[in-house]
Amino acid sequence: MPRISDRGFRMPASPIRKLAQYAEEAKQRGIDVLHLNIGQPDITTPKHAIDSIKNFSDPYISYSNSAGNLSLRKELVEYYKTNDIDISHKDILITTGGSEAICFAYYSILNYGDEVIVPEPFYSNYYGFTTETGARMIPVRSTIENGFALPEIEEFEKVLTPRTKAIMLCNPNNPTGYVYSRHELERIRDIVLENDLFLICDEVYREFCYDNDHYSVMNLSGIEDNVILVDSFSKRYNVCGIRIGALISRNKEVISTSLKFAQARLSPPSLGQIVAEALLKTPQEYLDKAFEEYKSRRDFVIHELNTIKGVYSPIPKGAFYSIVELPVDNAEKFCQWLLEEFEYKGTTVMLAPGNGFYTGKKLGERQVRLAYVLNKEKLALAVECLKKALEIYPGNLLK
Amino acid sequence: MPRISDRGFRMPASPIRKLAQYAEEAKQRGIDVLHLNIGQPDITTPKHAIDSIKNFSDPYISYSNSAGNLSLRKELVEYYKTNDIDISHKDILITTGGSEAICFAYYSILNYGDEVIVPEPFYSNYYGFTTETGARMIPVRSTIENGFALPEIEEFEKVLTPRTKAIMLCNPNNPTGYVYSRHELERIRDIVLENDLFLICDEVYREFCYDNDHYSVMNLSGIEDNVILVDSFSKRYNVCGIRIGALISRNKEVISTSLKFAQARLSPPSLGQIVAEALLKTPQEYLDKAFEEYKSRRDFVIHELNTIKGVYSPIPKGAFYSIVELPVDNAEKFCQWLLEEFEYKGTTVMLAPGNGFYTGKKLGERQVRLAYVLNKEKLALAVECLKKALEIYPGNLLK
Repeated sequence: MPRISDRGFRMPASPIRKLAQYAEEAKQRGIDVLHLNIGQPDITTPKHAIDSIKNFSDPYISYSNSAGNLSLRKELVEYYKTNDIDISHKDILITTGGSEAICFAYYSILNYGDEVIVPEPFYSNYYGFTTETGARMIPVRSTIENGFALPEIEEFEKVLTPRTKAIMLCNPNNPTGYVYSRHELERIRDIVLENDLFLICDEVYREFCYDNDHYSVMNLSGIEDNVILVDSFSKRYNVCGIRIGALISRNKEVISTSLKFAQARLSPPSLGQIVAEALLKTPQEYLDKAFEEYKSRRDFVIHELNTIKGVYSPIPKGAFYSIVELPVDNAEKFCQWLLEEFEYKGTTVMLAPGNGFYTGKKLGERQVRLAYVLNKEKLALAVECLKKALEIYPGNLLK
Repeated sequence: MPRISDRGFRMPASPIRKLAQYAEEAKQRGIDVLHLNIGQPDITTPKHAIDSIKNFSDPYISYSNSAGNLSLRKELVEYYKTNDIDISHKDILITTGGSEAICFAYYSILNYGDEVIVPEPFYSNYYGFTTETGARMIPVRSTIENGFALPEIEEFEKVLTPRTKAIMLCNPNNPTGYVYSRHELERIRDIVLENDLFLICDEVYREFCYDNDHYSVMNLSGIEDNVILVDSFSKRYNVCGIRIGALISRNKEVISTSLKFAQARLSPPSLGQIVAEALLKTPQEYLDKAFEEYKSRRDFVIHELNTIKGVYSPIPKGAFYSIVELPVDNAEKFCQWLLEEFEYKGTTVMLAPGNGFYTGKKLGERQVRLAYVLNKEKLALAVECLKKALEIYPGNLLK
């Protein structure tokens, strides 16, 4: 039997999805699983956008332009304008989710063995996409003690090598919920400029900054040609399944190169683009309401978690995740145990083990990523479950 | 400004789409462009499948399972059963078009610098995906004189190296329309077995074999663990825009490895999967009718083309493409000239230059790929245009 590729071996299973089978089995035993492992919220999608596909009247469902529908790209320019980002539709490629935007960016700028510096913990799939590309992800550590603020710029400088090609950020951050300030981003700008790097920033949670305004990397002056923005409709309007995102850059070579990768895969999903274009006509109240809902969930769940003995979560400033430290021997074992051996009131909780958000296996060993994507009633039950579970979990370190 | 990656430089622009801008400009001048460059047919999609999205009633559009909806995978098992292919739903991953299935296969089996042998001319995006993966595509030539039959097995043996990892076929073939016989495939089976290679086969045009039955690589005995099937709904039901395909293998390691890449990109499009599942309930008459339509278009257009002085097309046995030899100095120049400088009855024709379907630039220099995806009335006009165009084209070699 021929061998699987090295990259196939090295490719990590998603920490967010790898316990799915145990959750499935728990459900088959009649247990209600509260999914706090994955950023799949319960907020209703704007109805007019779902209705937009009901009006589909073409005789067949055709390819779109490889760069995405022109009308959608033009509408997006207006969306960015209201977010103080000034770009042309020629700077935009519509992608199959934010995921594909990251892949196109990586293929377009990274040679085999090139290095991308990413603050750790990081969105686990960045590591997957780097592996896919044959490049190397170089972590710089942010710490729970420091609320996952941007690591000191010296930490970036320490890991710079001749192979360093880019810095990748996620702002607001998944999985930490940290929101980088303009000041922090300007420090990144300086190092990008000085070392002629690309700066890729994933801003899919832009609207969900609870304590301060969002500052986009697109507004950092002096590195216009270095910046690649990754975006997505998925979280903003709870349409994860339409698989529509965008790669944005003022660097024309990045766009023309990415377009070649886009042409090879023919086109982004046509039905999703119809929904996406309708979404851009959503009244501001929708996002205001979603913002308030997530903020009040955050306030509630983080407070509750921090009342449990041995549990600690910093206060996430954005997105809808938090990295939570638990008093357990091994968080992955604990997460699996929750699904395989625990129930409370016919319910259990699914969490994403923290180690998948770090490169070193030991790091994040006692941490989980929690997504506050369910309503407060369910979050209250989830916290109650977690408290009961920790009381009886054999590997609780406080025992 | 930081440098684009080497693979970004090397990545070919799609020969099918790279002249799109000239077509756009022709349309802006009021010229009707007959698109025979791209496999985007005009056949109506089954109405019940389009209606299936109109019944969408979930409050939001969520991710699906990374492997695709279980119900869709189970329905696909039945589809394959009626096509004499016996597999389990566990052998299937739903992908974002056949394109993504090819990428997952490549990532899962190819190391940087590994080689994939592909009969030439080939579907141009195979070359793109190989470049994306950092692998090398090694062509073996099939010739127009031989109707693009499978090259002699000695030709494959000649290019085998320690880095050869796979053979890739497309059957029925895009761009040539050739259909590999069981006998030809068994010769491939032997070389695959002897050299412990993977065999990837793209069978998205399975239903469109006009002269003989289709024989699937999934039925080659003795290489069950070596075979990876690429499939797609796009052409079968004219739903190119839903972006739903499949990667199929009985090799559990290929599936589990590809699933890790699938998890990284989260999920295939949810709306497209709804349409796909409805499509599998389409009565057989739909495909019978599409078959008859394409067959009669083939008979018509190939006959007509071969009446033009200096033009030659073999008779394609399947799919809806043909590689056509033209009496021109350079087919790419001619294709561009058709869009920029020619019109007849307010109309012109867009074709895909042949050189993009070969690795060597000189090969295919006088060839184009023509897709007979329009109705016979339009095909007649297209042939008339082509005839008139060749009469006045300055680079006609017969002059």
